Amino acid sequence: MAAIVTETFTANGRTYHPPARPVVVACLDGCADEYLDAALARGLMPNLGRMAATGHRSLARGALPSFTNTNNASIATGAPPSVHGISGNFFLDPATGETVMMNAARYLRAPTIFAAAASAGRRVAVVTAKDKLREILAHGLHGISISAERARECRRETHGIEDVEELVGEPAPAIYSAAASLFVLRAGVLLLERGLADFLYLSLTDYVQHKHAPEEREALAFMAAVDVELGRLVGAGAVVGLTADHGMNAKQTPGGEPNVIYLATRLEELGFKGATVVLPITDPYVRHHGALGSFACIHLRDRSGAAPLARRLLEEPGIVEVHDRETAARKLELPEDRIGDLVVLAGRTAALGTRVEEHDLAALEGGLRSHGGRYEEMVPFIVSAPLSAPYARQAALDLRNFDIFELTVNGAGRS
Amino acid sequence: MAAIVTETFTANGRTYHPPARPVVVACLDGCADEYLDAALARGLMPNLGRMAATGHRSLARGALPSFTNTNNASIATGAPPSVHGISGNFFLDPATGETVMMNAARYLRAPTIFAAAASAGRRVAVVTAKDKLREILAHGLHGISISAERARECRRETHGIEDVEELVGEPAPAIYSAAASLFVLRAGVLLLERGLADFLYLSLTDYVQHKHAPEEREALAFMAAVDVELGRLVGAGAVVGLTADHGMNAKQTPGGEPNVIYLATRLEELGFKGATVVLPITDPYVRHHGALGSFACIHLRDRSGAAPLARRLLEEPGIVEVHDRETAARKLELPEDRIGDLVVLAGRTAALGTRVEEHDLAALEGGLRSHGGRYEEMVPFIVSAPLSAPYARQAALDLRNFDIFELTVNGAGRS
Repeated sequence: MAAIVTETFTANGRTYHPPARPVVVACLDGCADEYLDAALARGLMPNLGRMAATGHRSLARGALPSFTNTNNASIATGAPPSVHGISGNFFLDPATGETVMMNAARYLRAPTIFAAAASAGRRVAVVTAKDKLREILAHGLHGISISAERARECRRETHGIEDVEELVGEPAPAIYSAAASLFVLRAGVLLLERGLADFLYLSLTDYVQHKHAPEEREALAFMAAVDVELGRLVGAGAVVGLTADHGMNAKQTPGGEPNVIYLATRLEELGFKGATVVLPITDPYVRHHGALGSFACIHLRDRSGAAPLARRLLEEPGIVEVHDRETAARKLELPEDRIGDLVVLAGRTAALGTRVEEHDLAALEGGLRSHGGRYEEMVPFIVSAPLSAPYARQAALDLRNFDIFELTVNGAGRS
Repeated sequence: MAAIVTETFTANGRTYHPPARPVVVACLDGCADEYLDAALARGLMPNLGRMAATGHRSLARGALPSFTNTNNASIATGAPPSVHGISGNFFLDPATGETVMMNAARYLRAPTIFAAAASAGRRVAVVTAKDKLREILAHGLHGISISAERARECRRETHGIEDVEELVGEPAPAIYSAAASLFVLRAGVLLLERGLADFLYLSLTDYVQHKHAPEEREALAFMAAVDVELGRLVGAGAVVGLTADHGMNAKQTPGGEPNVIYLATRLEELGFKGATVVLPITDPYVRHHGALGSFACIHLRDRSGAAPLARRLLEEPGIVEVHDRETAARKLELPEDRIGDLVVLAGRTAALGTRVEEHDLAALEGGLRSHGGRYEEMVPFIVSAPLSAPYARQAALDLRNFDIFELTVNGAGRS
């Protein structure tokens, strides 16, 4: 096994002092803290329990909107969306007037920790469940970048490795499955155990959390399976950091129906014209959330209508915050040119849509559980080794999920 | 021991079907979920661990502002502040123009569950740490109501019991102590074990949480001691519900100094005149928070200045929400006549004050940890027995901390 390089590197104003042991950070997609609590209470996550007892466990603020691409980009850069530019999965590009997916590296405005670590000599591997993330996260990276979704398509020239299914010892699972996340973790374990990587980022999918509440059997079984792999990562000598991109809440009426505010329809009913509603949760993977989240952007033909519209929207039940572009950029740390004239956040139990006919509710396969707003902003933050004193002080004040690499590398890596 | 009465009763639109076993609800004042996690991870709360594994554990939304009196009144009535009227510890009474404490029963606008349960024949006991709460919670109650703070002053005619120190077997502790909370729990255990009460509400104090972060030795020792008493409550045959009035966050700069926005001073600097800043956290017990919380009300001489002031305040770092009276009443479920013309909420790391000279920062005895805003709204919610199916469904959607009596009595009491 090659020696592990400990050269210092920097990214986006932070300096990293990597230890001479492997570093693994995993993003447990959509893993609200309640999932961990429910599994821990039943003795299903003994490895996580040990990490929390001997290392550090607390809650951290994620980035808003509490979506996957936004928060993965934050974790990958150690910076908020105002710096890295990824304000959602999907946005209305003001340059073209078209709504487009934000899953291409050209939308990323900041270098990643991965590229910097690789330049400093670390053997970096980025493993994602969904391929949508891989291009953003692998930007500028000389190393391994693979996804469970397209494991079969990995080539040495483009992905830094091939024969991923052989490495993991199992066929790549369907993307809509718990197995997709477990494949990511197992790929991480194998890359680590075989000495193919010593600086890893493993980003799961929230398929299970979208479908199941924390105390449901399926969620508990998933967390138990995750825990097995966490134990292997720690057992292989890595310092391990865990966080999530966002939490997850039921967006349902007391009767169990999707609780959705259809904003485009509502704006028409209220007589507001010239508004385009953009839902940044939109991505090609709608089966688990139907493109319904708790965050929306509104673009107005006439911006002078923003203030009265904001006031009126705040009267709607289920909507908890409405900010104009400047306030949203400042308060929610968002890139001003990618969020429209108003941003709207729904509460714990409500989701935002455009028009009912534009969402495939039948595709939800059960009750709507989703994310995107302030109530899915707080996420778990766990490091497998004790934090050094300055980082322990920071952790007792206010952590962000995108501090996870700094705390894992600098705060716990040398302990 | 007298037979336990199971007569149905109602309060504020909810119907309670009490079981033929004791019911105990405890409010773990200021107990953010992280305190439980930190203690559980270290094996210090085995009884709580069993409750979570065999019963139910999740997170619930409290009432805003996330203050003690507001949330205790909500738990006691099963209703939001818009119904019960207790919008803080302290308010500007529009009838007199004076700021007054809101700890007198005349401010309470809704009957309590305790009074209703006692009328239905339950032997009710309300035990609080601070005496400020006792009068509100005991309003209309034919039963026992005592506080640790004034345990020595309890008389049968006024408190339903006397010789409380003899009952508990120890002298009443100082109110600024971990022991004050433990005294409350022990009083509850003894009242239960002696058959003096079969429907109990035990409301602790957040002295420890104001002073210590979850992973600190003192916090862990406190949670371990709480757990011993929880075990005794369950062991005595009670169905036990646990929640908190609010969470707790460090309101400090990265250097550890109090991170306070002095609103009255700031308004003067900004040239806004005729504004009175009221801090509803204010109470006679300032030693642990210095009257600094994350929620403030602003009364304006000229209400037409509300909108520009709201916009300007939202530009201040640390302030995350500013609502006018109507919006605050609607969105935060507050009584419109007790909140002023604007309400201001600070973020996870910031507190709101009036002027630096009006706060005794030296009295903080260490770093500022406080509450009052949206980031202290989510609290633990635990029931010691399994929830029946309809309540389990409700719990998987959205719980409020003031659902705790309904879920403990109706949801778990008969299991």
